[in-house]
Amino acid sequence: MPDSARVAQRILDPADPRIAAFVSIRERDLTGRHNRFVAEGTVVLRMLAASAAGGGPFTAEAILLLENRMAGVADILAQFDETVPVFVADAAVFNAIAGFDMHRGVLAIGMRQRPQTLEGLLSTLPDEALILAACGLSNHDNVGAIFRNAAAFGASAVLLDETCCDPLYRKAIRVSVGAVLAVPFVRQGTAADLLAAIEGRGFALWGLSPRGRTDLDDIPPAPRTALVVGAEGEGLPTAILAAIRTARIRQKPGLDSLNVATATGIALHRIASLNGRV
Amino acid sequence: MPDSARVAQRILDPADPRIAAFVSIRERDLTGRHNRFVAEGTVVLRMLAASAAGGGPFTAEAILLLENRMAGVADILAQFDETVPVFVADAAVFNAIAGFDMHRGVLAIGMRQRPQTLEGLLSTLPDEALILAACGLSNHDNVGAIFRNAAAFGASAVLLDETCCDPLYRKAIRVSVGAVLAVPFVRQGTAADLLAAIEGRGFALWGLSPRGRTDLDDIPPAPRTALVVGAEGEGLPTAILAAIRTARIRQKPGLDSLNVATATGIALHRIASLNGRV
Repeated sequence: MPDSARVAQRILDPADPRIAAFVSIRERDLTGRHNRFVAEGTVVLRMLAASAAGGGPFTAEAILLLENRMAGVADILAQFDETVPVFVADAAVFNAIAGFDMHRGVLAIGMRQRPQTLEGLLSTLPDEALILAACGLSNHDNVGAIFRNAAAFGASAVLLDETCCDPLYRKAIRVSVGAVLAVPFVRQGTAADLLAAIEGRGFALWGLSPRGRTDLDDIPPAPRTALVVGAEGEGLPTAILAAIRTARIRQKPGLDSLNVATATGIALHRIASLNGRV
Repeated sequence: MPDSARVAQRILDPADPRIAAFVSIRERDLTGRHNRFVAEGTVVLRMLAASAAGGGPFTAEAILLLENRMAGVADILAQFDETVPVFVADAAVFNAIAGFDMHRGVLAIGMRQRPQTLEGLLSTLPDEALILAACGLSNHDNVGAIFRNAAAFGASAVLLDETCCDPLYRKAIRVSVGAVLAVPFVRQGTAADLLAAIEGRGFALWGLSPRGRTDLDDIPPAPRTALVVGAEGEGLPTAILAAIRTARIRQKPGLDSLNVATATGIALHRIASLNGRV
């Protein structure tokens, strides 16, 4: 392909139909629509490019840049297929499109090229694996933060039940610093469905709960461990707490429990250290 | 005092001057004004009452409740001095005052009754203590989350440099689940000033950094430990990293570092466990 394919198309009019997908982007939730999502910022664009170039499930449908960001992301743009259009605008036009003062100046409409199935995800896990299963996480910040922690501590996959919010929601991707695009995940079924799918695959299952029976520091090493977490406040369903081993993070009594993302980070760090994953 | 002193004053008009301090509360930042702050929700109100009743530095200047919350917080209200006015309104008036649909229905204007000095705070620390010093934390969520973690892991105090945002900001208090009102803190000076004040008090000083020289798990026990953290991205100033011992949290290479509140939670958990504080 000629180099000219990578040349950005200049946008002069915020109403230009070519960039309609970027209009008032903060008010949009694209996630329900054909597996599209909003990727913001250089770091997230880099993760999106890595997925696209590395055979991952995600790529960009279109990219919109503030003109002074072009040079800084040239190496990232080169990783996308030549057919992905790149648009560029000055600050006034860019902000008029986005609908707010978007200092980062880097936006993409991402797309999931193919769905990830639970069976497909589980069957490709390595012999040594740490996975995270979560249910009832309805807060985008927490879901994003949990993916960030999952990536930091080398989790192989994240399984979300259908009551969790979509990690491809704009704010969750941003809070995850792009980890949502790097750690394989599914979001489907109930927590019980997810645990049933894990069963028989050699995972040591550990539910995290303030009332857990084992101290986190006493979890034994295992080639495959699945950490199971529930929503803040409610925690894991009683049926799940009764069915699997449970671990607690020691803390001062009489206080609200830890934030779920922080608790998950502490537990993933411990289990990853224990099993030599980090 | 007669029980009638605790009877709530009913507000029928959102423009009633008695509740002027609660108008459009989400848009206000009271923190700069005479040490006032906004406390939202039952849990935070309970922490405020505990401070007021327990000789702590905080109390309420006024309390505004949705009428159906009155019964649920009666025990909390009883902890405040009888002179603290309690106002009550129905949902329409309450939301018109607050400026948004405030489901929690529990608001207070808090006040700091007396300033906390750095010297005063340090001189009253117990012989066995864990304290946290932070610099450059400009994000209210992170500051709130750090206080929540400090409380959960039994930290005796939090020292913030003057470039940190005010933990008495509405959102920081909310994210901390009231821990800002429970863990003694100061916010003043530079990070170097704070460390100079700690010096000579028998604290093992540990800076947390992705490039720390000691694995977090290898920090030795000590009766008094001070954990020092910097802003996400920039991290701790080079001069501080050079002057004190530093610890790192093992994680996958090549990624953005952990969220600063999560990293602080992991480190506080480890140090608190190590020293038998939790």
